[in-house]
Amino acid sequence: MGEISRDIIETFLNPYPKRDYLIETFCPEFTSMCPKTGQPDFGSLTISYVADQKCFELKSLKLYLQQFRNHGAFYENVTNLILDDLVAATDPRQMKIVAEFTPRGGIRTTVTTEHRAED
Amino acid sequence: MGEISRDIIETFLNPYPKRDYLIETFCPEFTSMCPKTGQPDFGSLTISYVADQKCFELKSLKLYLQQFRNHGAFYENVTNLILDDLVAATDPRQMKIVAEFTPRGGIRTTVTTEHRAED
Amino acid sequence: MGEISRDIIETFLNPYPKRDYLIETFCPEFTSMCPKTGQPDFGSLTISYVADQKCFELKSLKLYLQQFRNHGAFYENVTNLILDDLVAATDPRQMKIVAEFTPRGGIRTTVTTEHRAED
Amino acid sequence: MGEISRDIIETFLNPYPKRDYLIETFCPEFTSMCPKTGQPDFGSLTISYVADQKCFELKSLKLYLQQFRNHGAFYENVTNLILDDLVAATDPRQMKIVAEFTPRGGIRTTVTTEHRAED
Amino acid sequence: MGEISRDIIETFLNPYPKRDYLIETFCPEFTSMCPKTGQPDFGSLTISYVADQKCFELKSLKLYLQQFRNHGAFYENVTNLILDDLVAATDPRQMKIVAEFTPRGGIRTTVTTEHRAED
Amino acid sequence: MGEISRDIIETFLNPYPKRDYLIETFCPEFTSMCPKTGQPDFGSLTISYVADQKCFELKSLKLYLQQFRNHGAFYENVTNLILDDLVAATDPRQMKIVAEFTPRGGIRTTVTTEHRAED
Amino acid sequence: MGEISRDIIETFLNPYPKRDYLIETFCPEFTSMCPKTGQPDFGSLTISYVADQKCFELKSLKLYLQQFRNHGAFYENVTNLILDDLVAATDPRQMKIVAEFTPRGGIRTTVTTEHRAED
Amino acid sequence: MGEISRDIIETFLNPYPKRDYLIETFCPEFTSMCPKTGQPDFGSLTISYVADQKCFELKSLKLYLQQFRNHGAFYENVTNLILDDLVAATDPRQMKIVAEFTPRGGIRTTVTTEHRAED
Amino acid sequence: MGEISRDIIETFLNPYPKRDYLIETFCPEFTSMCPKTGQPDFGSLTISYVADQKCFELKSLKLYLQQFRNHGAFYENVTNLILDDLVAATDPRQMKIVAEFTPRGGIRTTVTTEHRAED
Amino acid sequence: MGEISRDIIETFLNPYPKRDYLIETFCPEFTSMCPKTGQPDFGSLTISYVADQKCFELKSLKLYLQQFRNHGAFYENVTNLILDDLVAATDPRQMKIVAEFTPRGGIRTTVTTEHRAED
Repeated sequence: MGEISRDIIETFLNPYPKRDYLIETFCPEFTSMCPKTGQPDFGSLTISYVADQKCFELKSLKLYLQQFRNHGAFYENVTNLILDDLVAATDPRQMKIVAEFTPRGGIRTTVTTEHRAED
Repeated sequence: MGEISRDIIETFLNPYPKRDYLIETFCPEFTSMCPKTGQPDFGSLTISYVADQKCFELKSLKLYLQQFRNHGAFYENVTNLILDDLVAATDPRQMKIVAEFTPRGGIRTTVTTEHRAED
Repeated sequence: MGEISRDIIETFLNPYPKRDYLIETFCPEFTSMCPKTGQPDFGSLTISYVADQKCFELKSLKLYLQQFRNHGAFYENVTNLILDDLVAATDPRQMKIVAEFTPRGGIRTTVTTEHRAED
Repeated sequence: MGEISRDIIETFLNPYPKRDYLIETFCPEFTSMCPKTGQPDFGSLTISYVADQKCFELKSLKLYLQQFRNHGAFYENVTNLILDDLVAATDPRQMKIVAEFTPRGGIRTTVTTEHRAED
Repeated sequence: MGEISRDIIETFLNPYPKRDYLIETFCPEFTSMCPKTGQPDFGSLTISYVADQKCFELKSLKLYLQQFRNHGAFYENVTNLILDDLVAATDPRQMKIVAEFTPRGGIRTTVTTEHRAED
Repeated sequence: MGEISRDIIETFLNPYPKRDYLIETFCPEFTSMCPKTGQPDFGSLTISYVADQKCFELKSLKLYLQQFRNHGAFYENVTNLILDDLVAATDPRQMKIVAEFTPRGGIRTTVTTEHRAED
Repeated sequence: MGEISRDIIETFLNPYPKRDYLIETFCPEFTSMCPKTGQPDFGSLTISYVADQKCFELKSLKLYLQQFRNHGAFYENVTNLILDDLVAATDPRQMKIVAEFTPRGGIRTTVTTEHRAED
Repeated sequence: MGEISRDIIETFLNPYPKRDYLIETFCPEFTSMCPKTGQPDFGSLTISYVADQKCFELKSLKLYLQQFRNHGAFYENVTNLILDDLVAATDPRQMKIVAEFTPRGGIRTTVTTEHRAED
Repeated sequence: MGEISRDIIETFLNPYPKRDYLIETFCPEFTSMCPKTGQPDFGSLTISYVADQKCFELKSLKLYLQQFRNHGAFYENVTNLILDDLVAATDPRQMKIVAEFTPRGGIRTTVTTEHRAED
Repeated sequence: MGEISRDIIETFLNPYPKRDYLIETFCPEFTSMCPKTGQPDFGSLTISYVADQKCFELKSLKLYLQQFRNHGAFYENVTNLILDDLVAATDPRQMKIVAEFTPRGGIRTTVTTEHRAED
């Protein structure tokens, strides 16, 4: 199964670091593999954060997320792993990820996870 | 009428137990029997929780909920019973269930119940 | 004009009185008479409450509300009267009624009223 | 149960009788009684017609329809009876009624009936 | 698996047999069993017909459809079987059934089937 | 009550007269007066036409329609009068007006009228 | 330009003055004139308040608002003036007005203003 | 890039071959690769057909479509190729595919293609 | 004002020229200039066509449409000009353009124009 | 690339400076250029503020925003720059801008930034 490398994520300098403002990025074309059944999973990610010194660059985010295309992982793992990687890359004041997956067996799951910088 | 066994619910270890994050599961295909009229009731359940050490496994959740298919119970009972069973199985930090039932006699009912672990 | 009797409302014992949980009942088929014009009014009621010892039974609620079919009363009166009657019948921990009436003369009115048990 | 009189329906002269044009009237506040259960039914009527010499007056239409408030009849009867009465009152080139009733026992019914003047 | 009896369907005399008019019945609470997996399927049925001498009675329709609750059959079979049974019971001028099933494996299926009386 | 002058409508030359193409103009801010009650009526107009040699200019259309602001007329009259005036001004190959009025007394009316050039 | 008189607003005694409850009135058919261009503006008002001793009567509210039909004023003025007038007429515990105006030059404006009685 | 094999598609016997009826299958989780940019494309397929002797089996359809996950092809090719393969596998009386792709560069594309058996 | 060159439009060979199938392209980000006021106009284009030998390439379509960004033209002209240019570039069996422009002065316009190859 | 001048923004005196009230302006027709690709970006701005002594005039706001039409800047820069300019022009008690951009590469971004006057 495909490896996930966080080194793909590029950043640029936050142009307004003195102001707390919110950047929300919606990625409706997320897909990964179910490690149990080997079947593809589909979903959408909403990543919102207050940058400190670094913002992630959108094209590199897309390439980072495409690594999951042939990667097997459970919903809870995927969502928290992406949070860990984006926090490591940008060291934000706060960041939240909402991952909504399409129905399987008539059941639909959403995972919401959040990071806050320690003061 | 069918018995409900909570032993059906399987769990797996929470992969990120150090972080408080929210798992929301939406089950739109719930059906039970009205104990008064013997007629089927239909509804949807939204189960959201912050796991502690254990997460419930989705396929076993589906099988657990299918037990209600031929089980007679009132809305208030069904919703609180499911909460009790899922809390017993996963011992979460908090859990909330919203059960929306389809209209009967021109009246539609929603029951919302919640559990919080004692600190 | 028709009299309103609160004695019609039947109750059953709250099956989970130790837990504060919310029961929401949506009644989209409410109709009464305008006391000024004698014309029918139409609307929907959303009754949500945290039961203490008693829950109202849905069929009796329907019959109670049908008494307004030929009863004349203004919006503000109707909504608060229903709150008074349901509180008297069930003595809840809290109860809220939102009554949305259809447009008259291009104007639409919603009345929201609430009861909280004294601690 | 209440009698239905078609004499209530007032008409006015079609101001543009030379042109075939469509008048559509939507009445979302229709209510009658179920003859079997004695319970109220609710629905909406869409009446569309091409007038010949006469148009029905809207206030009188409202009063005509209010007669059904305490009148017992099945869906199929109600819809065709209203068509018969409005055709008798206005003698239109064509007229169609779509009656959508709210759900009963989890089932929703729509009746569509039509009249065309013989050439 | 449960047997399906069409004898449950009761009819009443079409009150307006001289006029071709359309009766549409929407049943959003249909459920059957998948014969392959033994899992429940869910869907909604829209039955529309032009009655000849007989209309089906709604309560008996509901009981007829409830027979499928523990009956195993594929989508294509279920839809055509219900058409056959309702045609046998009411001998309509025409009848159409649209059955929409909820997603399985990320795929959603709708079956549409129709009967026309031979002239 | 205000007079309606069709002379206000300005036109420009159809830039593509050899091709039959459709221009649809939606005017959601129409208001006139009810001649019976003296109360304002509100609605929206959808004017669609295939121009021959002339198109109406939008600003002049707006000023033309504003004349109805203090003008009293019934729905059927208003709609057909506007059709007559726009046909007189532009002599189109075909033109259709759909006028949707907001609810009065719980009843909503739409008038649809059409003109076709004689071949 | 038309004068606005607040004396038109009639009131009736609040039937439940001991209870704080919310009355929300939605008026989608508001129109005034732009003082700069002389063109009509259109919008909707949502007036919500907790009455003290007096409620405003709906028909008189409609007549009060119709005064703006030929009155020129900017959005910010109109909204605050209506608040002042309704507060003067009913002396409520609190009142809020949300005025949403339709787009002009591709830009849409909403003004929200609020009054709270001094304790 | 991945090869596409139509041999994966399994069929079963049409249970009602004497009746022309429509089977519509909606697959919202389709993904392929752009042959030009190497980037993933996403879309949904609606496949509707009137079967003759054979229906395609849904699980095998899913596996067939998953072959496109790492396959590069333009929209027009993909849609017509799937039509060719499904027609070859089931030899239907008629079949239509509507493929809606998500936006690229601010532009969204839908391809619709159809097969009819020669009489 | 900017010139419009149709030479920018690139094409590729229709991969399935023997089959009549429909390609629909939705461009929600169209903007041009009003020649009268010098103000920007905004709108969306839906271009649908049955290709003969040539399909237009999407990136070149985008660049072609961007030429209108600083080009002044009326709605009717813009829409028909784009049709002429795309027909000249691809010589399709048929092509239709629906151009929906955002409201100006409270009025919204849609232009629909169509080309059919002569047989 | 085009320069942005904040001097274009005209203001008028806040007519109700003693009351804190909210003015919300929605501008769905915003467009700028991507500095990296030279391609146009599209989006909508929601500007909401509590004015102190000055309100911005809508026509001048439109002209100010049109300067971005041929100006290259990243989302985060654009949004914060507009906030800076509007704060400089009107010195409000508080102001918030929500900028929603249309999808690029399957990813959609929203930037939210806020200013509060120091007390």
